[in-house]
This record gives sequence, C-alpha cells and structure tokens, in this order.
Amino acid sequence: MARKPKNTFSVDHIAGGGLVDRCRLLGGGLTLGAGMAASGIAMTGPTHADAALSEWVTQAGETVRGYGVPAPEEGYVQRALIRPYGDLAPGYSFSGTPLQYLRGSITPNGLHFEVHHGGRPLLDAYDHRLMIHGLVDRPLQFDAAALERYPMVSNVHFLECAGNSGRNASENGPPQITIDQLHGLVSNAEWTGVPLNLLLDEAGVRPEGKWVIAIGDDGPGMARSIPIEKMMGDGILALYQNGERLRPEQGYPMRLLLPGYEGNMNVKWVTSLFVTGSPAHTKSESGEYSELLADGQTAQFTFGMGVKSLITHPSALMTMQGPGFYEISELAWSGAGRIARVEVSADGGQSWADAELAGPVLSRAVTRFRIPWVWDGTPTDLVSRATDETGAVQPTRTAWKAKYAPSNFLHYNAIQPWRITAQGEVENVYL
Amino acid sequence: MARKPKNTFSVDHIAGGGLVDRCRLLGGGLTLGAGMAASGIAMTGPTHADAALSEWVTQAGETVRGYGVPAPEEGYVQRALIRPYGDLAPGYSFSGTPLQYLRGSITPNGLHFEVHHGGRPLLDAYDHRLMIHGLVDRPLQFDAAALERYPMVSNVHFLECAGNSGRNASENGPPQITIDQLHGLVSNAEWTGVPLNLLLDEAGVRPEGKWVIAIGDDGPGMARSIPIEKMMGDGILALYQNGERLRPEQGYPMRLLLPGYEGNMNVKWVTSLFVTGSPAHTKSESGEYSELLADGQTAQFTFGMGVKSLITHPSALMTMQGPGFYEISELAWSGAGRIARVEVSADGGQSWADAELAGPVLSRAVTRFRIPWVWDGTPTDLVSRATDETGAVQPTRTAWKAKYAPSNFLHYNAIQPWRITAQGEVENVYL
Repeated sequence: MARKPKNTFSVDHIAGGGLVDRCRLLGGGLTLGAGMAASGIAMTGPTHADAALSEWVTQAGETVRGYGVPAPEEGYVQRALIRPYGDLAPGYSFSGTPLQYLRGSITPNGLHFEVHHGGRPLLDAYDHRLMIHGLVDRPLQFDAAALERYPMVSNVHFLECAGNSGRNASENGPPQITIDQLHGLVSNAEWTGVPLNLLLDEAGVRPEGKWVIAIGDDGPGMARSIPIEKMMGDGILALYQNGERLRPEQGYPMRLLLPGYEGNMNVKWVTSLFVTGSPAHTKSESGEYSELLADGQTAQFTFGMGVKSLITHPSALMTMQGPGFYEISELAWSGAGRIARVEVSADGGQSWADAELAGPVLSRAVTRFRIPWVWDGTPTDLVSRATDETGAVQPTRTAWKAKYAPSNFLHYNAIQPWRITAQGEVENVYL
Repeated sequence: MARKPKNTFSVDHIAGGGLVDRCRLLGGGLTLGAGMAASGIAMTGPTHADAALSEWVTQAGETVRGYGVPAPEEGYVQRALIRPYGDLAPGYSFSGTPLQYLRGSITPNGLHFEVHHGGRPLLDAYDHRLMIHGLVDRPLQFDAAALERYPMVSNVHFLECAGNSGRNASENGPPQITIDQLHGLVSNAEWTGVPLNLLLDEAGVRPEGKWVIAIGDDGPGMARSIPIEKMMGDGILALYQNGERLRPEQGYPMRLLLPGYEGNMNVKWVTSLFVTGSPAHTKSESGEYSELLADGQTAQFTFGMGVKSLITHPSALMTMQGPGFYEISELAWSGAGRIARVEVSADGGQSWADAELAGPVLSRAVTRFRIPWVWDGTPTDLVSRATDETGAVQPTRTAWKAKYAPSNFLHYNAIQPWRITAQGEVENVYL
C-alpha cells in the first residue's frame, strides 16, 4: 500500500471493522480535510520557488517514439511466471496478471494472463486461415485481411482460466502466495471482432449442425466442442484486443471469444470450426477441464464461469502501513451476466456493507468495486461477496468444497478472506 | 482494408450511396449467407485433415513472458512521428495514434498520442512530489506512494490536443496524408486516480481561491490556469492508464485528467497546484493555445473540446479492394458529454443514415460507431456528422472557418469528408 503511516479519524461507520460510506465521502458529506487520510505531508521547509532546478528541466527531454513501454521504475510490474517451461512439461506454461499492482478494470495488453498448453506457436500469421466446414452448405476459409471487410463488434469481457484460484481448493493450505500467483489467471479487455453468426451464416449451417469443434493451430491442437447456440449468440471471432491487433499470447491473428465461458474454450490461434451434430469429447473437455463431483460423477458441459469477487488492495503478503484510512479495492465478475452487488465485511463476515461500483457495469466483464475503510490496528478479516444479476451469490469455501470431490480445483469461485494481523501483515485464510 | 475483392449484392438501403441497416444485418433480418460479403474463399482443395503438419505444431512453442509485446507482423503499427526533434525546435515533439490500424474504442498504452513541449523529462519518479499550495489553509505535498491509500475513481475519457486536425484549417489543402498524421492527436483510455477535490479539501482551499495554476515538471514547466470548479468537479489526479501505472509519455508518475478539456491542460508530470484568485495567463494559455477569431479578438478560456467524429475505415490514402460490401467504422467524442448520434452520408451529404453505436456510450469518451455499406464502384464522398447530448452538432468546414481568423488552426472539429475515386483511392477533400 502506501509508504507513509498516518493518523486515524472519526466518522460514522456503515458496518463493523471500520467500513465508511463512500458516497458521503466523495460527495463532500465528509472531507479528508481534517487529516482523515492525511497522507499529504505539511510543507514547512522551502517551497519549490526556492529550490534549485532539477537537472531534467535544464535540458530538452526525450523525443517521441513509435511504440511506448512502461517507465523503468515500473519494471517489477510483470506477469507472474506461475508455470514456466520445465515445471510440469514442455509446452505447458502459465503466467498471471499482477492484480496487486493494477487499478481500474482494463488489463493492459502486456499483462493479460497466458495459459499455453503447447507453448505459444511461432505460426505464419500471413498464411493463417480459419476454415468453417463440416455440416455446412459452403465450406469456407478466411484470412485476417479478408475479415477486415466484415461488420465488427466491440465489447469488454473478462477471460478466466477454469483453473484460476484452484490452489485455494487444497487442504494443504491456505497458500501464502501473492494474488497474481493465486488468482492471476483472469484478465479483462475490450475485444473487437466479427460476430461468429455472420461467418457461420455465410457458410450455411445445416439443421443437423448442433455443435462446433473449434481447433487452435498450436502443438496440442487445443480443441473444444461449443454449442451452436453460443457460437450464433454472442460468440465473436476476435481480431483486436484493447484497440490493437491481438497479442501473440492471446491468439494472434484470431481467436474465439465466448463471453463468460472458461478460458480454454476461447480457442486461440483458431484455425478450424468444424460443425457437427454432437460434441467431440476431446481430451481438453473429457479430461483436463472436467470437474469430479462429490458424488463421484463428472460434471459435463460446465462452460460458464461462476460469480466471483476478489479484494486486490489489500491482498496477501502486502504489509499495512499502520492504522488509519485505506480504500479497499476489489474486482468482481460473472460468466452469467452483470455484477449486481458486492458486499464487503471488515469483521470476518459478521457485518456487511455494499461497496460502490466503478461504472459502467458490463455483462461478463470485470467491474472494479471500492469501499473506504479505517483500520484500527487490531487483527481482522476482510471478505468480499459478489452477487450477479441472475441472483447467483458467491459461495463460501465450505459450500463450494461440498459440491466437489476433494481433488477438484476447477471453477473455484469461493469468497477469499484476507487476514490482517496486528503487525499489519496480510495473510490468506480459509474461513 | 481487405486483400480480397468481392461481389456486390442487393439489399434494402437506408440512405443513398449504399448504406445498409446494421440492426437488420446483425439481427439476422439479413444474412451474409448469399455471398453478401463473401470474403470467405470456397474450400475446393484438400481440407486440413489432408495437409502436412506445419512446423510449429510439431514442436513446443514459446514459454510465457513477463510483459508482452505485439506480434512482429504488426511492427508497422506505430505512432506517427508527426513532429520529431529537429523539425521545429528541440523539445517540441508530437506523435499520433495510428487510428487507421485500430478498432474498438480503447487506445492501447503503447500507442497513446504524445505532445511534448520540452521533450519527455527523465525525472526522478521516486522523488517526485505534488505540492498543493497558495490560497490554502494547509500547504501539502504528496508522492505517488502516499496517494495509494486514497479513494480512487476509474473512468474512460478521451484526450485530444487542441491542435489536432488543424492542418485541415489550411487553405493550402486539403492535405493528402494518413489519418494518424492528420487526426492522430486523440486517444482514449481508462484513467484511474484520486479525485482532486479530496486533495484540495485536505489542503483547505480558502474562499478567495478561484483558480489553480497547474505546473508540470518538464523543461518548459508547462503551466495552465484551471477554474477551481473543474478541479473540484470531475478533475482527477491520474496515476493509472488502462489499469497499469501511467506511461512516461503520459505524465508518469502523475498527471491531471480534466475530462473534456484540451490536452495540454491535463498537465503531465504535474508537480505544483498553486491556488490563486485569478488566472496566471501563462505562455501556453495566452499565446500557444488561444484562438484568434474572425473579428480580430482572441478567444479566452476555450477549455472544452468540441463535438467531433471521424471515419477511420476507410480513410485517407487507403485503397478500396473493389466494389461490394464494407463496414464504415468511425470514432466520435465530445468534450461536453456523451455522443447522442452519428450520422453518415455516402453521397457527400445529400442523404444521411444513423450509424450504430458500440456501447457503452460514456461521457467525454471516444465511442465507436459503425454502419454497413455497399460500394458500387463509382466515385462518392463519405461524411460523418456527430451530435452530442447537449445538442451541439459538428460543423461543416465552412461554418467552422467563418468563426475564426484565417490563421487559426486550434479546436478544429469540422466534419471530415473522404472522397472515394473510381479507382478506389481514398482522398481528403474539403466540401
């Protein structure tokens, strides 16, 4: 958090543990004037009018450049290399978005999480084609240039790996790792591309065509079966990510974007859409990405990601800078639609207050929520709980675990409590 | 645009020159099935099941990396170096966002436009302070770390240089240059930071404090006078840009963000907010950024940017790939609020049709608009015209020129016609 420890203050609280009414705060009903945050340092010495000029204002600065990069001082803001090569198998590698260093809701393209089942292929983008074939009247193929003439749509959507947060499912926990390592396989971007229904209609899907087997042009040939209704509904063949062309890690030159569906179904480097009458039961859907339930059955076709929220500031392994004012900042998303509500508790769930959303709240997109908080310096547990527009409520870990076999770690969306110790250390905890 | 010339087709048009109803198109009332766009190439040869494996699927691909970069094939997507050093004076340099290569509404951070009056200073970010002083009860200073504890807001806003598009004001025109060179000094990002009213309230602005002189820590000490109402209203001390910390070119470690106000008032590398009773009439406001009017007077305090739209696809110096279906894609924004409407004409303004917006339509933010179009291969002029929620309508060039002295090029927001020649060349034209 911040570098400068500060004073406490007294205001009306709206829930236990020091939660403060944000509307009154930002609306002027309360002010920070009386040293509420008081991170500002009183100026008692010489003012800048007296100071010597800094070296950089005595000379011309740097000229413009074609493509910018972050400040050198921000060089530590990198994706967490959760699973680089060699950790499990060649080709398998994951990196996580450093949520603890980001604010806002958009993930900048350089920091969007990666999951590669066979590594990032060094494909020939100019020669890349998407084929639409199988149960269609007119098998077609498209390159990226041809698609530039098609109608496009732009929407902000999250992508989340089905395995995100899965380490919290382990009984050998809670893991004491930073949030990028634990929850970093979720990102949020504005995706622009061609609605899949236009391309499928051009090919002419036959009445018996009920599924589409999407295959990526990477080593494993990542393949998933997708219901035709999703493809024809809000599915997009994405070509652009936050305005510019897709990054190589996100499937350049083209990928599927299936809003709300688990990450790997949004097939990257997609090269084939094969229309069939039934699902293909590929390795990735029958093996890797299926959840073993408590009753011994395996869940089938669990495409959508659950409702979820996550406090990013503060979060695990941060150190509080003494008692006083903080803003609790969190992310929330749901594969089923818009986030309707995020509640925050600063007393381990005994009392709750609604956090304020940073609009616009978009369907199947990450939304930032915030709530002011005064920490009194005593141990406490911070918790957030999201509800989406369908009424689905983020479960407790206990409720989530009860659904599944002990080994399952996929689709973990339980609430995440952070414990603040008396020393101001932030720890992961199972409540 | 695309690489593959295609066929025409017949549908109901909604205005002259080939404009098509997008709602019917995307909603299924019309389909692309009968070869409307027909950019898909019929597959008549071997399918991929028969093809030899590509080299990249026979081996593991690349592993994850900490901070991603664009695909090498996209290396040409760079900011236009409109005015690098040496062109005018040391320290003056501009670069423009390559709008012709971008889709969606967000500008990725690497491509946000730059205007530097004294170059990009190589400042000491760790030592950087923002001072709030002058007519305040408690002069204060803040570093970026201290501000991390404050309440933050996140909003998508455009920034546009007051000089953007100014070359269209010249009688020695119309300039035949690409859109990044002509109109590239506008970008759009999600900005996150601390509301300025919180910081000013903490310092305690005295009743006689009516203006704030904001000064940047660059060579020229870029300084602008800002009404206290704007600072206390929606002004933000921005720390983050599309989720990550500000880029150096955009004022790292902190800048002003005054939604809708001309670019240079959003002072970068801001180091001093000096509260005064009256404006300072700095060089940048009395000289550089003031508009000489037709009656010989100089306009004062023209802070807000006007309502504006711009067709990006197609745009100047592109070449059409033959007659047939295209999507016209454009951007619109206004310093006064939300865009209410964008009309497009494909016959030089004789008839107009409403383009469809890509929501959400946010206040003082760039919005993407789109409309389908069938080009019949004959010469035509494409024009767009925006209206904002205050009812302000984008003026014609003639109406805009009538307001100002011939030499003025600032705040140029007139409509931009693009002429399509019979050869499919796209040219800039004054109508």
